[in-house]
Amino acid sequence: MTNYGITPTETPRLCVVMVGLPARGKSLITQKIVRYLSWLSIKARSFNVGSYRRLQEAHPSADFFDVHNAQGERMRRQAAELAVKDMLEWFETSDGVVAILDATNSTKARRSWIKELLQGHGVEPFFVESWCNDKELIWNNIMDVKTTSPDYVGQDPEEAAKDFMARIRKYEEVYETLDETEAESSYVKIINVSSQVVINKIRSYLQSRIVYYVMNLHIKRRCIWLSRHGESEYNLTGKLGGDANLSPRGEMYARKLPELVKEAVGDRPLTVWTSTLRRTQQTARFLPYPKLAWKALDELDAGVCDGMTYEEIEQKYPEDFAARDKDKYEYRYRGGESYRDVVTRLEPIIMELERQENIMIVTHQAVLRCIYAYFMNVPQDRSPWMVVPLHTLIQLEPRPYSTNETRVPANIPAVSTYREKGTSSKHSTEVVE
Amino acid sequence: MTNYGITPTETPRLCVVMVGLPARGKSLITQKIVRYLSWLSIKARSFNVGSYRRLQEAHPSADFFDVHNAQGERMRRQAAELAVKDMLEWFETSDGVVAILDATNSTKARRSWIKELLQGHGVEPFFVESWCNDKELIWNNIMDVKTTSPDYVGQDPEEAAKDFMARIRKYEEVYETLDETEAESSYVKIINVSSQVVINKIRSYLQSRIVYYVMNLHIKRRCIWLSRHGESEYNLTGKLGGDANLSPRGEMYARKLPELVKEAVGDRPLTVWTSTLRRTQQTARFLPYPKLAWKALDELDAGVCDGMTYEEIEQKYPEDFAARDKDKYEYRYRGGESYRDVVTRLEPIIMELERQENIMIVTHQAVLRCIYAYFMNVPQDRSPWMVVPLHTLIQLEPRPYSTNETRVPANIPAVSTYREKGTSSKHSTEVVE
Repeated sequence: MTNYGITPTETPRLCVVMVGLPARGKSLITQKIVRYLSWLSIKARSFNVGSYRRLQEAHPSADFFDVHNAQGERMRRQAAELAVKDMLEWFETSDGVVAILDATNSTKARRSWIKELLQGHGVEPFFVESWCNDKELIWNNIMDVKTTSPDYVGQDPEEAAKDFMARIRKYEEVYETLDETEAESSYVKIINVSSQVVINKIRSYLQSRIVYYVMNLHIKRRCIWLSRHGESEYNLTGKLGGDANLSPRGEMYARKLPELVKEAVGDRPLTVWTSTLRRTQQTARFLPYPKLAWKALDELDAGVCDGMTYEEIEQKYPEDFAARDKDKYEYRYRGGESYRDVVTRLEPIIMELERQENIMIVTHQAVLRCIYAYFMNVPQDRSPWMVVPLHTLIQLEPRPYSTNETRVPANIPAVSTYREKGTSSKHSTEVVE
Repeated sequence: MTNYGITPTETPRLCVVMVGLPARGKSLITQKIVRYLSWLSIKARSFNVGSYRRLQEAHPSADFFDVHNAQGERMRRQAAELAVKDMLEWFETSDGVVAILDATNSTKARRSWIKELLQGHGVEPFFVESWCNDKELIWNNIMDVKTTSPDYVGQDPEEAAKDFMARIRKYEEVYETLDETEAESSYVKIINVSSQVVINKIRSYLQSRIVYYVMNLHIKRRCIWLSRHGESEYNLTGKLGGDANLSPRGEMYARKLPELVKEAVGDRPLTVWTSTLRRTQQTARFLPYPKLAWKALDELDAGVCDGMTYEEIEQKYPEDFAARDKDKYEYRYRGGESYRDVVTRLEPIIMELERQENIMIVTHQAVLRCIYAYFMNVPQDRSPWMVVPLHTLIQLEPRPYSTNETRVPANIPAVSTYREKGTSSKHSTEVVE
């Protein structure tokens, strides 16, 4: 078995149990963990208790969440039971590895119940608490929720915010944070968006990866810009890999790029990352920002096929060519890499991107597809086939529950390097404008 | 500039300020951080305040450390000043990146003084506290110290232990742990060897790497076994790289390995890691333990030289051949990797090795050299030239301040793949027994 991070000596099934008052960013953290693990090929899924509760009670008022409301309490517990039931079924039927139980789980009694339930089914519970007393952060979250929560669909936003604040107060009455009385549990407690992080009894590799990931997250607004290098001499002849120089049109793109970037970035501070290969460094060389070259951003290594065209590969290695078409994500060039290998080496890049603010990355087709797949949550079977034209600046703006994308073409012609699945391998000399 | 982890937007100078009572493993953590960072090519050095104090007072009794002993207090502060002075000089003259101030730094007043001093010189302070109330752990540390500390050289071990415990009590009288009154400081607080870890205001990439490293450390006794794959068909002809099968003698080694390993490991649980290449998997295939193949353990990629012999490389790429001889650590094969690149991709392997207990790794010459260099603290200019014969089992046992090594030859002949620096490139067909 080839390892992508999980060792067989570890617990195979982990449930991340979210803990925290409403409007503390639990669902945001949940979604990010699911996206990050999925990108790393670790099967992950979230189970949101609220959506199970809505099956019975679609638009509850704050009173529903009162601890003295016996019917409300019963229904909320039922919802949690249903969520856990579905989760256990998912572990069984889908070879799931990490489930995330997205709910407040705000009392020790509730957590103790969930812990026993999970352990009884061979699932390791791992509590992730988001604790926050920063008024501005909470207020921003409330504003997000009142406009996005299905609980308040169709309601007056002012009324929704008021009701939601009343709901939070109901929870506050009974809320118990993770402390020394739960010292035997594995948990991480994130205080005011990683201003402080308390990590308790971390056991497995997966727990340690998740902890490292959440402690590097921030919520400042920023953008990430992606661009392929300008058209290269290899692109002109359809050769893969190598370390060619830019073509004259690639050079034109490099010269136009500062203007394009300036328009998109404005006066914001920016750092430019490139690969260690000539074509990305030549493309970035007129950009007036600090630059950094990463080996991890080098193009997918085509191994023995480096320097060959698709036609040559099809002639010399016909079975390989077909195998790659069949499963482009897993196919590893002889002596080279697969998309999966690229994702593995990009992991530290993604971690550092989460920590940083405005970053522009000038890199290569396959690498850009992998980075893009992380931010846009593109599934593995689709990401290697994604169209990323040359001479185009892509702007990604991560928002709480999605990432906004803008593409700015430089309007400088270039060959298309895109090869459609199952089609002829002939290299396209068609010029794309 | 090529990036190996540190981005230019970060603080270039960091001082890890250790905090903790005596016998809490501060020096151990210090040494591990220095070794880890040095291995990653991040210039790091420790400054031990005790050794500065010993210049004036070589064998102080416990009373020297009494808070009411004005002369002792003055001398200890002088020692700290001298250590910081040397550290600042080291930053200036040696392009240092991370200094570690190894001392108790046990009061808020002392820490506040150090913080101001460092910040006044453009150095970011980062406190790492080791807090421990586990009696057995402390006792083991006391036993280590009384036999290894220069303070007690030549003294009766019983007396030394008694005096050392009295010294600890002196410190306990004034000790102040890191808490909310120091909330503005960047710190990590390690409680009972990572049973709990509190991380506060982590800012830079380097801080986050150091935190992730120390939170993965454990102090259970264990061993790591290293072996190259058995002799391969490529080894016979002196070809580099490839994905060849074992030679008949390599096959003999694979068949003998279970016996060798059984003798070394005994009944301890073991997991075997291999690369994804045939020759390591064939070598490990008779070992009766769980196995895991890592792409990160594949041999250094010789790029365009893959499949060539040293003679062929010297003929075809004479300048490259000479450049590699001159700086083998930095030399990157065209389209391939350098030793430095291998270290970068091995970093997750080292992190996971720190977390695991008994592990056996069957891998390749260059990769094994890099892993060995981490555990044995081999400097970069020497590690690529290290002799690692085929058909030999290496046992490493990490101890608090060093790693014990044992080599067990299988006594199965194999070619030597070692090429001495500056010598003829002729492949040796000499058989080593």
